[in-house]
Amino acid sequence: MSGNTELKKARAGDTRALARLISLVEDSSPRVRDLIKELLPSTGSARIIGLTGSPGVGKSTVTGALIGAYRAAGSRVAVLAVDPTSPFSGGALLGDRVRMQDHALDDQVYIRSMASRGHLGGLAASTPQAIRVLDAAGFELIIIETVGVGQAEVAIASLADSVVVLLAPGMGDAIQAAKAGILEVADLFVVNKADRPDSQQVVRDLRNMIALAHLGPADWKPPIVSTIAMKGEGIDELVGRLDAHWSWLGSSGTLEQRRQARAREEITALAFAALRGRLTVNRLDTLAREVASGRLDPFAAAEELLNTRDGTDTEYG
Amino acid sequence: MSGNTELKKARAGDTRALARLISLVEDSSPRVRDLIKELLPSTGSARIIGLTGSPGVGKSTVTGALIGAYRAAGSRVAVLAVDPTSPFSGGALLGDRVRMQDHALDDQVYIRSMASRGHLGGLAASTPQAIRVLDAAGFELIIIETVGVGQAEVAIASLADSVVVLLAPGMGDAIQAAKAGILEVADLFVVNKADRPDSQQVVRDLRNMIALAHLGPADWKPPIVSTIAMKGEGIDELVGRLDAHWSWLGSSGTLEQRRQARAREEITALAFAALRGRLTVNRLDTLAREVASGRLDPFAAAEELLNTRDGTDTEYG
Repeated sequence: MSGNTELKKARAGDTRALARLISLVEDSSPRVRDLIKELLPSTGSARIIGLTGSPGVGKSTVTGALIGAYRAAGSRVAVLAVDPTSPFSGGALLGDRVRMQDHALDDQVYIRSMASRGHLGGLAASTPQAIRVLDAAGFELIIIETVGVGQAEVAIASLADSVVVLLAPGMGDAIQAAKAGILEVADLFVVNKADRPDSQQVVRDLRNMIALAHLGPADWKPPIVSTIAMKGEGIDELVGRLDAHWSWLGSSGTLEQRRQARAREEITALAFAALRGRLTVNRLDTLAREVASGRLDPFAAAEELLNTRDGTDTEYG
Repeated sequence: MSGNTELKKARAGDTRALARLISLVEDSSPRVRDLIKELLPSTGSARIIGLTGSPGVGKSTVTGALIGAYRAAGSRVAVLAVDPTSPFSGGALLGDRVRMQDHALDDQVYIRSMASRGHLGGLAASTPQAIRVLDAAGFELIIIETVGVGQAEVAIASLADSVVVLLAPGMGDAIQAAKAGILEVADLFVVNKADRPDSQQVVRDLRNMIALAHLGPADWKPPIVSTIAMKGEGIDELVGRLDAHWSWLGSSGTLEQRRQARAREEITALAFAALRGRLTVNRLDTLAREVASGRLDPFAAAEELLNTRDGTDTEYG
């Protein structure tokens, strides 16, 4: 199949063609490079929202509600749900996704889970390519939903133009989010399950932390939106705040800066992936034995490794 | 100060000398390389236990109980508590540490928090060096405690000879641990807070998951120990299981394999850190602008970056 033909089909709403293109990216196929080159001129117009937070705060419910709101406004919406590696990957743990199934029959909505396939760098390298594919396929809004609270999730969330951090009373409170470094990347906070007794306490803690840590630039202080996503409450306000952030991104020049920063991360991730490909050569095993036995110091080993050129093609994956 | 003199002091129990050596490592001082070279011949005899699990399961309490048990057996014990980057780093979030304060006046016990200073690769690069320093300083047991459930924590936990994964009823259950990929790295499971009503359910879930995912090698099936660490219950059994694992590591040849694997990770992390140092040059900004504007594809940019030699010395950090 030609990437270009598939892309035309995907643009026309052929979900299976789109799925095949994203699979190429996810599998780090050697054909990804040509594909990305081909579709590059058609990218740059999608708006990317990152959504992150501890397990159980209601990310999928909020995502489902956002899909509904933006569909009502006429946008094509795609969701990339990023799951960390797990021996139980695939269907079993993706029960949450059923909460998005309201939109399963809408061919202007595309929902896809990405798995990280065993190493930290993998998702950081493949997610931007998946975003490009969705962008080129004509999705105006792309939501990246990350499951988890680690630094990998923070890194992936920061691929977005607007980053929404979700909290909920009792589940992964503000202190835990602070521990994971998630608060720093937030453009907006959502306190979901606002009908729970201690939700006002979460809002207060969060407000104190935002003040304490001087989060956000001087002209964009991250707002806190309370929602009960299950009932659709607060979603209009969230959409309003997101749209205000999008306007601010454009008018302040931040969008351009942020997309350049994203490109920096992407290039770095690809370079790391290529380096990792190079590391699979036998040389690393020999060096590791020397270091483990105390015959060679690890810095000398790293230097030797970086200077090893084994003559094979650069690999990405 | 000479690393060697400081090391002699640290070996003799001078905690301030030891703290200075670890700070060198944590700050990625250019002197680390010489220090590690110097102390390399004195390393290799410490036993390293990794302890990980979701926030709130009682990691610090279990660590405190383990310190007590191994001190009673006459070992010098060190703890590296690894915290993810946070704008609130330092004292504020380290309240948990007070649970280890029973041992604060024992000069045969050394407890240290490591912060990750802003990027994922940082801790992966500096933690092994901190372990070497503690090993060379004569600590027989080194416990690495990671706070969090992300892949970075999994990566750091796998630096250990024995990895203990903690769970507790209601806090980060087995499914969440599976999502984070934590179960795969476990040599032992601890279900803490075993006096809570649903702790037996956690044990059952865990047992099912271990069977389902075929966790562990054929001759070491990860045991599940129930503890109430606050009351010291189950700690003797945990120590017994840990000692059995240590014996198995030696007799099966796994210890050597694992330490070689650790050296591989260490070399890789140092190589990545060096590469990252190289990436700070202006070239990356130029490439990022080209990619962000769609004029250059990211793969070509990554290749160009890897081939850039800017003439500066290799940096680690």
